[in-house]
Amino acid sequence: MKKVAIVMGSSSDLRVMEEAVKVLRELGVETEVDIVSAHRTPQKMFDFAASAHEKGIGVIIAGAGGAAHLPGMIASLTPLPVIGVPVKSSNSIDGWDSVLSILQMPAGVPVATVALDGARNAGILAAQILAVNDEILREKIMRFKKELEDKVTIMSEETRAKFQ
Amino acid sequence: MKKVAIVMGSSSDLRVMEEAVKVLRELGVETEVDIVSAHRTPQKMFDFAASAHEKGIGVIIAGAGGAAHLPGMIASLTPLPVIGVPVKSSNSIDGWDSVLSILQMPAGVPVATVALDGARNAGILAAQILAVNDEILREKIMRFKKELEDKVTIMSEETRAKFQ
Amino acid sequence: MKKVAIVMGSSSDLRVMEEAVKVLRELGVETEVDIVSAHRTPQKMFDFAASAHEKGIGVIIAGAGGAAHLPGMIASLTPLPVIGVPVKSSNSIDGWDSVLSILQMPAGVPVATVALDGARNAGILAAQILAVNDEILREKIMRFKKELEDKVTIMSEETRAKFQ
Amino acid sequence: MKKVAIVMGSSSDLRVMEEAVKVLRELGVETEVDIVSAHRTPQKMFDFAASAHEKGIGVIIAGAGGAAHLPGMIASLTPLPVIGVPVKSSNSIDGWDSVLSILQMPAGVPVATVALDGARNAGILAAQILAVNDEILREKIMRFKKELEDKVTIMSEETRAKFQ
Amino acid sequence: MKKVAIVMGSSSDLRVMEEAVKVLRELGVETEVDIVSAHRTPQKMFDFAASAHEKGIGVIIAGAGGAAHLPGMIASLTPLPVIGVPVKSSNSIDGWDSVLSILQMPAGVPVATVALDGARNAGILAAQILAVNDEILREKIMRFKKELEDKVTIMSEETRAKFQ
Amino acid sequence: MKKVAIVMGSSSDLRVMEEAVKVLRELGVETEVDIVSAHRTPQKMFDFAASAHEKGIGVIIAGAGGAAHLPGMIASLTPLPVIGVPVKSSNSIDGWDSVLSILQMPAGVPVATVALDGARNAGILAAQILAVNDEILREKIMRFKKELEDKVTIMSEETRAKFQ
Amino acid sequence: MKKVAIVMGSSSDLRVMEEAVKVLRELGVETEVDIVSAHRTPQKMFDFAASAHEKGIGVIIAGAGGAAHLPGMIASLTPLPVIGVPVKSSNSIDGWDSVLSILQMPAGVPVATVALDGARNAGILAAQILAVNDEILREKIMRFKKELEDKVTIMSEETRAKFQ
Amino acid sequence: MKKVAIVMGSSSDLRVMEEAVKVLRELGVETEVDIVSAHRTPQKMFDFAASAHEKGIGVIIAGAGGAAHLPGMIASLTPLPVIGVPVKSSNSIDGWDSVLSILQMPAGVPVATVALDGARNAGILAAQILAVNDEILREKIMRFKKELEDKVTIMSEETRAKFQ
Repeated sequence: MKKVAIVMGSSSDLRVMEEAVKVLRELGVETEVDIVSAHRTPQKMFDFAASAHEKGIGVIIAGAGGAAHLPGMIASLTPLPVIGVPVKSSNSIDGWDSVLSILQMPAGVPVATVALDGARNAGILAAQILAVNDEILREKIMRFKKELEDKVTIMSEETRAKFQ
Repeated sequence: MKKVAIVMGSSSDLRVMEEAVKVLRELGVETEVDIVSAHRTPQKMFDFAASAHEKGIGVIIAGAGGAAHLPGMIASLTPLPVIGVPVKSSNSIDGWDSVLSILQMPAGVPVATVALDGARNAGILAAQILAVNDEILREKIMRFKKELEDKVTIMSEETRAKFQ
Repeated sequence: MKKVAIVMGSSSDLRVMEEAVKVLRELGVETEVDIVSAHRTPQKMFDFAASAHEKGIGVIIAGAGGAAHLPGMIASLTPLPVIGVPVKSSNSIDGWDSVLSILQMPAGVPVATVALDGARNAGILAAQILAVNDEILREKIMRFKKELEDKVTIMSEETRAKFQ
Repeated sequence: MKKVAIVMGSSSDLRVMEEAVKVLRELGVETEVDIVSAHRTPQKMFDFAASAHEKGIGVIIAGAGGAAHLPGMIASLTPLPVIGVPVKSSNSIDGWDSVLSILQMPAGVPVATVALDGARNAGILAAQILAVNDEILREKIMRFKKELEDKVTIMSEETRAKFQ
Repeated sequence: MKKVAIVMGSSSDLRVMEEAVKVLRELGVETEVDIVSAHRTPQKMFDFAASAHEKGIGVIIAGAGGAAHLPGMIASLTPLPVIGVPVKSSNSIDGWDSVLSILQMPAGVPVATVALDGARNAGILAAQILAVNDEILREKIMRFKKELEDKVTIMSEETRAKFQ
Repeated sequence: MKKVAIVMGSSSDLRVMEEAVKVLRELGVETEVDIVSAHRTPQKMFDFAASAHEKGIGVIIAGAGGAAHLPGMIASLTPLPVIGVPVKSSNSIDGWDSVLSILQMPAGVPVATVALDGARNAGILAAQILAVNDEILREKIMRFKKELEDKVTIMSEETRAKFQ
Repeated sequence: MKKVAIVMGSSSDLRVMEEAVKVLRELGVETEVDIVSAHRTPQKMFDFAASAHEKGIGVIIAGAGGAAHLPGMIASLTPLPVIGVPVKSSNSIDGWDSVLSILQMPAGVPVATVALDGARNAGILAAQILAVNDEILREKIMRFKKELEDKVTIMSEETRAKFQ
Repeated sequence: MKKVAIVMGSSSDLRVMEEAVKVLRELGVETEVDIVSAHRTPQKMFDFAASAHEKGIGVIIAGAGGAAHLPGMIASLTPLPVIGVPVKSSNSIDGWDSVLSILQMPAGVPVATVALDGARNAGILAAQILAVNDEILREKIMRFKKELEDKVTIMSEETRAKFQ
């Protein structure tokens, strides 16, 4: 199975982004994590993005805040699907800048955008993508969804009891 | 190769959504297109989403406008990756409602959101997902990106000439 | 008199939503409270919504945050009036996503939306709906409004005294 | 069965608001329609709202644009449920002012807000409210929902045929 | 000289609104302060607004948050100039609802809107209005502006020294 | 009686701003109209604002679009009340820039802001300000409000007839 | 004197961007114009940006719409000042995406952002930058500002005459 | 080499604005810092702006919050390039007012706007402007960019190690 690369512009984004790593590990997907900045290490970003598909990587998750160019720039350089995580960083205007500069990519260069600070969902989405041709991983995802359901069932029972 | 299902809540969304069909056909990916409304045909939506992964479908593209629940509800019912296209329908507040009600999914249930009216990008993203384990399709995507580049090169030459 | 069902996607919404329960109990309206998640327990949501009108329920109050699909999906499945409470949950962009994904329902499937975190008003509105054909409940609502007025009168006296 | 009163601040709002009248007539609900302006005829608004519940009216639908005070002011004066329709009038900032000044009512005085220009949904919601204790009207609403479903089924067949 | 009436919907708004009282007292303008709620004491609001111009009041300052109808409703009932103060109350969406529901009044019924939580400016504006035909008060306002300037001059000296 | 000065940054704003002139003439208030640009004729703006109160002017109405600095800069230079009209000019982002750069003045320097393109209300507000100490003008304003009411009454009769 | 390079992602942006060329030619500044797309020709963008300062270019103006990464990416690769022009392209959400993805650059990599569609101002700003050490160009800019003033003076005379 | 003047409306803006001073000092650029308020010291602002280019100043950085007129007004009075820093002051609506009232300048009078609270970038941009004709300063800027890159490289190594 291919790996998922998780990159972000600064280690200050790790607080948000490690949720993606965590859920991928739970699902048994191999990850590699790195700091790659579109604005401060453009050459490294360029090299990483242009060669990722040749290095066993199947999906790239990129997180960034403010004028968040990393996911879109990587998408311009790779044939792989790129998942963008808008991060509500300290220099962001309530997250709107992060969301819009990742989401609103021009025709030809898509970024699969998830919710603000939605790194956990980015991880799940990456697993779903790898599972398109992997029955075992899909089974894990279905069990994962079943567990979500079970948690709600427990909350439901507690709540019904409380308000009886 | 698996198929891509393209669904939307109303045939009025076809104007936007057929761009996804078009680009997928250009890339040689098989599609099926249907009208499925979360709010008006909830049972059909339910049946479609819960069984899609058993019917040769690998990726689902769902387009919707206003309080756009179709992509997220399908995502809650399928283990497949779901791509959401916010549509700037006539009843939308400048597209913000469509964008936010597709993008801001809770942890556990991702939707891969593309730009407002970005159906063409949804199609390309679906192809990129199918190409993760398909060398031939990836080659097509790389050629496709090369053509984008070539078009810009022509524009560049014309523009440089014009302003000489 | 019919009951009011109060449902929400997670027990973390209880902090907001129990205001609806409280005011309905003050007004002597019977309630039932449950956790029902559109995205994590879609089948339960489906069953609850499709049968509520056969189980003595007259009005449904549904609270949700972020891409808040619960109120609209319930409305698509029931002939009962559905009141939606946008919740400013931790994963929300200042509440805008919650508000727009509940309010902007397409023609045919209304949700009676109240203010952000406005669960208390959802409870009062549910009581007003039940009171349309219930003189005694309407009397209670009119007394309730009178008490609101009396509280302002007391604040007015204190304030006038303070600034004399 | 009680009547539904449909009021608005200006006859220029009729373009939007008559959708409420139309759907209520389809459902066999009696309506009365009037122009009542919170800002230009405050006394009339006051008299209308304070006495509506004594004149056979069961639900009030109020539409307004810009700084839209009519629905909220009526709600402050009546024990009846009030449905507010934000109208995207010519003097509105993309409808945001209409939406927020109707939706964001303080605790104690709810307005059941529907989508921007959502008068048709206001009519359906009013009927759902009257149907809480009216089996025959509820049957009509369920048939109405069935017809919505049938229209989507026809669109679905046409679309599937088109893209075969 | 006429008085300035300062009203607000709840004593919780006093925290913001007493800045208006304070600056008016500094300028020697007589004030009266009261709690008047458009939504909870509509009759009192009506009586206050319709008679204010007969009771020695020259300008009305009204503060409100959320769906803030108090300034506009008072303006509909009085020939006096009404100054509206949008209050960022706890139930407000970042203040946008307060601002828009005060500012966006329809043609015919103006409200002189000041900045979010701008009660101090409301007080100064009220004084400027009373000073239109009052040379002595205008002199005070000009001295007040001079003091603002002097404070900046002191800050300037300190800052220049600090960065020498 | 003092005059009202109506100024704006460009003759392209006249389309909006002449509504202020029109309503002031209807009410018998003398006006003077000029083009004064904060950004292109700063010295003229400075001279105009600093001396207006010595030239028989009682109120200044200033209209501007985009980064609209004219009303606030005039307010910084005059002791007179300044009414700001945000204009939705061609270079504006849906009017938000005009509104916010006029409304959000710092403490000490108020601008009485009216609705986007609300020049008619600016004129009425200026008249209300002049009427604070002018019984005859106040009478005119009260008749003016009565006429607004009469127009609604006629619309009401037509609408009631239409929907009988 | 150094040249100003004006680049944009697509020839569809020329409609907006040629205003920069025009004003720079009026001021006698040499320009070069090209189409360079961050997303479709990333390598060309990279080469252009990294070498511009060695080719006689003193300032770079970059225009882009939607998720507008061109100005920021160029800024990451050049030591030259970069001016960003947010373009309200057809795929933009009212221009907000263009503005925020250019403006909100992280610390270390500034982009001098001008107004939405503000290419003319970008040209003037570029000239002002070149004029910092060029007395003759500064004289031209001061004459240019004087002409702006003269145009307003003419508008002023016409308007004063019209409203006499 | 010319100096950079850094001005702001209040010493409360120093918290943000001193980042500009700091980075300019790191780069060896001479600065002068002052408090100049458009609204409270308009004459001083006028004098400062009109004469700055005659006093050895090459670039002006102006920071302001709320209805932020200082950068634009200075730009109207000087031929020098003006960099505007929107400050998220306490009286700001999430910074939107500061951003829009600095960014959206009319054609003819540009302000080079940087990110909200982006004073550090304003300093770097000012240095880049001075470096257009100063090889030594440009070398410093290129080293500065190299250091940014180095910091990311260190973060990268730490992160890769952590997730091995």
